[in-house]
Amino acid sequence: MPTQTEEFLRSHPRDIGVEDVDLLKTTVERLAACAQSCTACADACLGESEVAELVACVRLNLDCADVCSAAERVLTRRTDADPELQRSLLETAILYTQACARECERHGGRHEHCRLCADRCRLAEDSCRQFLLQVQEQQR
Amino acid sequence: MPTQTEEFLRSHPRDIGVEDVDLLKTTVERLAACAQSCTACADACLGESEVAELVACVRLNLDCADVCSAAERVLTRRTDADPELQRSLLETAILYTQACARECERHGGRHEHCRLCADRCRLAEDSCRQFLLQVQEQQR
Amino acid sequence: MPTQTEEFLRSHPRDIGVEDVDLLKTTVERLAACAQSCTACADACLGESEVAELVACVRLNLDCADVCSAAERVLTRRTDADPELQRSLLETAILYTQACARECERHGGRHEHCRLCADRCRLAEDSCRQFLLQVQEQQR
Amino acid sequence: MPTQTEEFLRSHPRDIGVEDVDLLKTTVERLAACAQSCTACADACLGESEVAELVACVRLNLDCADVCSAAERVLTRRTDADPELQRSLLETAILYTQACARECERHGGRHEHCRLCADRCRLAEDSCRQFLLQVQEQQR
Repeated sequence: MPTQTEEFLRSHPRDIGVEDVDLLKTTVERLAACAQSCTACADACLGESEVAELVACVRLNLDCADVCSAAERVLTRRTDADPELQRSLLETAILYTQACARECERHGGRHEHCRLCADRCRLAEDSCRQFLLQVQEQQR
Repeated sequence: MPTQTEEFLRSHPRDIGVEDVDLLKTTVERLAACAQSCTACADACLGESEVAELVACVRLNLDCADVCSAAERVLTRRTDADPELQRSLLETAILYTQACARECERHGGRHEHCRLCADRCRLAEDSCRQFLLQVQEQQR
Repeated sequence: MPTQTEEFLRSHPRDIGVEDVDLLKTTVERLAACAQSCTACADACLGESEVAELVACVRLNLDCADVCSAAERVLTRRTDADPELQRSLLETAILYTQACARECERHGGRHEHCRLCADRCRLAEDSCRQFLLQVQEQQR
Repeated sequence: MPTQTEEFLRSHPRDIGVEDVDLLKTTVERLAACAQSCTACADACLGESEVAELVACVRLNLDCADVCSAAERVLTRRTDADPELQRSLLETAILYTQACARECERHGGRHEHCRLCADRCRLAEDSCRQFLLQVQEQQR
């Protein structure tokens, strides 16, 4: 069964400018899942009694949520999509998801929400890296 | 298998202030799906040759995406969740998803992206109405 | 000298649906200032050594920033602006700015960023209340 | 008189990690002004009778608003600010503001909102370039 993201990409009236629709779909969905995870992890960290030890985690969660939400919105838009702009945004999303994953992994043994969030960040990072390769090939 | 939203809600260190976790989970997920649908529908409308007839639809899509994204983030946060604040935000989300669904339904026969988006708006509206009832009961 | 917001409102090609452009301008600008203040206050709270006592403040700051950002964007859009939708969003913004102001005021004596943020919340709340009255009159 | 942004930066409890507070202040304020301008310009374009000729402009406006809002939020946060992450986000913001300015400049002669928006994009781009230089020097 096609996902919502796939249905929208297939109903777009123009050439959406990608060869691998499935990769774009997965990237958008993982960015959305990562943004939500980071929002949830920041809030759960605030609810922990040792919140003072989780300050760097909350801060990166908030940044990563903002960057991934922006990337999700921009990559969802396919009218006149510009490879150079997408490339830069993907590179930025890779750095934020990677940094947030690393910080969450430090607390994953004690906090389930950090473990879950690290997983979502790594999935988003991985898809962004693959989609970046595709975008770079288009630019050649 | 539990969804990501459910896993995060269950890993929260505090009382998340809801009796029906499943209803909260569905509401948050449908708000996220609605926000993404509205972003995609606005962009697809911009790609249509008769974009001039879809201006009201694009405008409502953009508003509904912003309102549902804010509601998704706020309802995801469960530390010290305030019923009165949630109630007002849910009422606002209901009005925006309803108005956007109505406009999209007008174009659903001709544009598959409008039909899909109307469906997502209706699902979000429906869950917000149910969750609103639960929040109102908590306030009594 | 007119502000940026005023220049944009005056350059809009359609009837922007308000009698008091100055009130709309002030409301949008104060919502933007409040959103930024709440983002800054949340981060400054995270940097305080007694962050554990500021958890409720951070949480309300994050919510208020999201609600005010959404309201700022929606009220900036004047094409086919709907009074009923604006009314509900203003009511929600009033509740969030009021709640955030109250919490920030509790810490304003010790933390300058909380005092500054409370001021910005109160200014946004006040303008939203005035603009709400104007929107309600239009609906009659 | 200090601006709101400056007051918040000066009230931060930790080392905010920049030498030139004034440059950071200007960058954050211009990103906020650019985000608001892009939201307003997209809406004004939708209100124009020849909206079909402004589709690329609306699309870039929406992207630039999302990227600049995310950058404004992230750069406002000064707790444990990471130079490498800021660098990448600034590079992305430079590309989006530059692309949006170029497109708006094409319509600036006929549409005042496009002319105003191009100016705001160029100001944001210019400050991001200057702040990027400072961040790069910190990394050495």
